[in-house]
Amino acid sequence: MADARDQLKDAQRRIGTFAKASPELFGGFSKVSKAATAAGSFTAAQKELIAAAIAVTKGCEDCIVYHLDGALKHGAKEADLVEALEVAVEMGGGPSVMYGAKALEIFRALQQ
Amino acid sequence: MADARDQLKDAQRRIGTFAKASPELFGGFSKVSKAATAAGSFTAAQKELIAAAIAVTKGCEDCIVYHLDGALKHGAKEADLVEALEVAVEMGGGPSVMYGAKALEIFRALQQ
Amino acid sequence: MADARDQLKDAQRRIGTFAKASPELFGGFSKVSKAATAAGSFTAAQKELIAAAIAVTKGCEDCIVYHLDGALKHGAKEADLVEALEVAVEMGGGPSVMYGAKALEIFRALQQ
Amino acid sequence: MADARDQLKDAQRRIGTFAKASPELFGGFSKVSKAATAAGSFTAAQKELIAAAIAVTKGCEDCIVYHLDGALKHGAKEADLVEALEVAVEMGGGPSVMYGAKALEIFRALQQ
Amino acid sequence: MADARDQLKDAQRRIGTFAKASPELFGGFSKVSKAATAAGSFTAAQKELIAAAIAVTKGCEDCIVYHLDGALKHGAKEADLVEALEVAVEMGGGPSVMYGAKALEIFRALQQ
Amino acid sequence: MADARDQLKDAQRRIGTFAKASPELFGGFSKVSKAATAAGSFTAAQKELIAAAIAVTKGCEDCIVYHLDGALKHGAKEADLVEALEVAVEMGGGPSVMYGAKALEIFRALQQ
Repeated sequence: MADARDQLKDAQRRIGTFAKASPELFGGFSKVSKAATAAGSFTAAQKELIAAAIAVTKGCEDCIVYHLDGALKHGAKEADLVEALEVAVEMGGGPSVMYGAKALEIFRALQQ
Repeated sequence: MADARDQLKDAQRRIGTFAKASPELFGGFSKVSKAATAAGSFTAAQKELIAAAIAVTKGCEDCIVYHLDGALKHGAKEADLVEALEVAVEMGGGPSVMYGAKALEIFRALQQ
Repeated sequence: MADARDQLKDAQRRIGTFAKASPELFGGFSKVSKAATAAGSFTAAQKELIAAAIAVTKGCEDCIVYHLDGALKHGAKEADLVEALEVAVEMGGGPSVMYGAKALEIFRALQQ
Repeated sequence: MADARDQLKDAQRRIGTFAKASPELFGGFSKVSKAATAAGSFTAAQKELIAAAIAVTKGCEDCIVYHLDGALKHGAKEADLVEALEVAVEMGGGPSVMYGAKALEIFRALQQ
Repeated sequence: MADARDQLKDAQRRIGTFAKASPELFGGFSKVSKAATAAGSFTAAQKELIAAAIAVTKGCEDCIVYHLDGALKHGAKEADLVEALEVAVEMGGGPSVMYGAKALEIFRALQQ
Repeated sequence: MADARDQLKDAQRRIGTFAKASPELFGGFSKVSKAATAAGSFTAAQKELIAAAIAVTKGCEDCIVYHLDGALKHGAKEADLVEALEVAVEMGGGPSVMYGAKALEIFRALQQ
């Protein structure tokens, strides 16, 4: 599954295009993302995993890829991801099983 | 559209991988699924169709494929599915028209 | 909990006001509802329960009250409701436990 | 229904408290909101109505009150709101009927 | 990206199949859509863009393609779309960034 | 706001009633919850906060109260909650601002 990395690049390219069309909005949103991901009592990796878990409960695949990439860059391990996905399943039921299973597959693919 | 069956197999494989990484959670979730699908005043086929209708309102395609496969194995007919999809459209509007239309196509593909 | 019946009346009054402000739309939507609820291979009571189960997964309390009232008028029993709620929990996780629990309480209140 | 104005004040007070606890995030989010609401080919009033319509499809009552207040301050009329709510019903089905009906009631209450 | 037009055709074909299987429901839903899209204080193009913005917050790609096609037929410009997408991001956060970015790409592809 | 504790008790009572009506399902779901909340690389308190953050993005108030109570019992601090809420706002936009602000108020009320 080389697709996970392609999917990430496609998402990043599209976001870049949208950001160029809407610079004021993205100026604000990048501050939101920065504040949300800054290391605190949760590490940056943990915060990216929380974002991925929320993405799983929303069924947003591009978000899953994007935040798992962020989590990996901050050193997240598969065991950490699985724990976050378990909370997602508790809060999202069957659809979170489906997107959680995709998240695990994507996480492994992004590591290669 | 031979893809529906491939999509089902991919989803099942991914679920298997996730279940192996998270056996306690899946032990619990399989009890939830079993309780939810046991024949009662709704038949097992009807319950799988209700699950598929909820999946339509949530836009979870893997869930649609998965529960339509379950419905077919319990003997669901297309007329039964269409009725469940109609309730989904009442409760979900335009997006449920879109995913309901996919559900009908997938149901036919899985029968071949 | 006499509130369930009050909540139903408030919702019905508000819908009436909205329908008066938007007659074309409601002309169409009432056809959608009628088609979705007509007895077929699911009974009308079962269809109202499916609508209530979807409402549970969406967290729409007014919808829950409204469709449980419809289900009761068509003769639904508590055991039927519980089965529909179980599918909702399978597909919605924790939030559906919360709204499913409310649905059961509302169903009992509406029967008194 | 004097409650709409109370509900607005409660929401505003709570947002103030959250903003104080999370100043970086709210610095970014206020830029997002400002960019999203600036008059362009849609007027500011229309944009607040779009936000309210999205809030209707999400069932977020505090958001409905908040953005209807914004719409009124920018001169929105009830006929404009009804049109936005009609799109919400097209895209959200029954739950949007319920929250759309609440939005109309709130809009009238905020005008008094 | 010739795919946007293919995706539109596939969605339209599937809707046609569903409509044939469920004529009463679609008779009602087409009235809902017609009422929701009729020009008023919002133009028809603006209403299609609102529908697309709601679709972005729901992550329904087929809906995005469908309503952007409608918006283009009524003369919508990219600047109008971007404004609607900005409200979607305000109301939907990260997932709306992802689907909003797809919407912009699809809009451009449909124009070619 | 003494209501937070009342709201918690009401939710717990309703869940108890639902569990009695559906013992098989709840047997499974309690295993899911237990697996999702067990301390690992995230602490139990952190996991309850993740559940609360997901509840914020879903707008489920009973879930917010329930999981914040769990978080407090495991020793969560307000600074930890605020960080989880910031990720919720990043992933949920305006509605998560509203429910996040409620979560903060509830957390403070539950501590008294």
